[in-house]
Amino acid sequence: MNFDELLKRRTVRRFLQKEIPVEKLKKILEAARRASCARNAQRLRYIAAVSTQKVEEIFPHTAYAGSVSPRRNPVPGVTAPKAFIAVYGTEEPDNMLYADAGAAIQSMEFTAWEEGIGSCWIGSFSKEKVAAILGVEKSRLLFLVALGWKGEDPVMEDIPSGGSPKYFLDEKDVLHIPKYTVDALTKWV
Amino acid sequence: MNFDELLKRRTVRRFLQKEIPVEKLKKILEAARRASCARNAQRLRYIAAVSTQKVEEIFPHTAYAGSVSPRRNPVPGVTAPKAFIAVYGTEEPDNMLYADAGAAIQSMEFTAWEEGIGSCWIGSFSKEKVAAILGVEKSRLLFLVALGWKGEDPVMEDIPSGGSPKYFLDEKDVLHIPKYTVDALTKWV
Repeated sequence: MNFDELLKRRTVRRFLQKEIPVEKLKKILEAARRASCARNAQRLRYIAAVSTQKVEEIFPHTAYAGSVSPRRNPVPGVTAPKAFIAVYGTEEPDNMLYADAGAAIQSMEFTAWEEGIGSCWIGSFSKEKVAAILGVEKSRLLFLVALGWKGEDPVMEDIPSGGSPKYFLDEKDVLHIPKYTVDALTKWV
Repeated sequence: MNFDELLKRRTVRRFLQKEIPVEKLKKILEAARRASCARNAQRLRYIAAVSTQKVEEIFPHTAYAGSVSPRRNPVPGVTAPKAFIAVYGTEEPDNMLYADAGAAIQSMEFTAWEEGIGSCWIGSFSKEKVAAILGVEKSRLLFLVALGWKGEDPVMEDIPSGGSPKYFLDEKDVLHIPKYTVDALTKWV
């Protein structure tokens, strides 16, 4: 897939109930380790939660698509993620570590998509509960990425002048993601 | 270019002195607007500094590759960037906005690379000076991305057990970027 095509990737919150092969998860993590990071310090670490037990333990502590809640909450055994990758720091996070995490997660999302796997970057979860489940320090836990074979196809569209960035579900239960145009976002000097 | 190939992208700090067509910069910004962001709130904005005057004004306030300084400082008129994209927030930045910026910048870097354009994500610059040059609020200015046609080919390599992540220049003046392996970075549960 060329990168123009890959840029059509969108967040997925409905997953097929089919295992993700370990090699595909390793490929996704390979993208993370190659991502840009400040001073090449590589202060991010990963926990791949792949066992049914761990995935089921984590799931109730994660939240999805607040604006259309509860309509895009994955359903255990029906549309729930099949794996989570937790992203945490080797030290207490600063702004730059959050930026590093964004770069690593975006890279993982592209690789996943190219393999047919959908992802949902989760910032809204119980850090306390998930840190305890994974055995990491709560203050160093940054994000989760939920993963599974794609079970929906959200649609991106341009925001017209004066329009809203709020995402919505249409009458066919398709998620629409409005995005500002380059012209609306950019000044040239 | 498929994404596996694109993941070989590395930061570039030596640029050819050839203009970057505006369409290529627009394509790079298109990648930014499509990036993942928290709640689809789209709180990032961009200033594309492309005029010779603005690029030359910004350049002295940016820093490059501290560990091999000054050997990878671009030289004005010889290896300096031909454009900067400044990334700033519509509001005072929080951790999540830094993560959004990481995702957007990583996406821009991939698109640039696919077009033959190298990039250097810059966190080390005088926010005060650059904010004044660009007419944005210093506290909302997050990062700069330096851009130009690629004038070097840095090499990534795996860090052996017990090895250092410190990047270095070899005797042929090639930059080497050691990266931890997936096995070294990941726990599976």
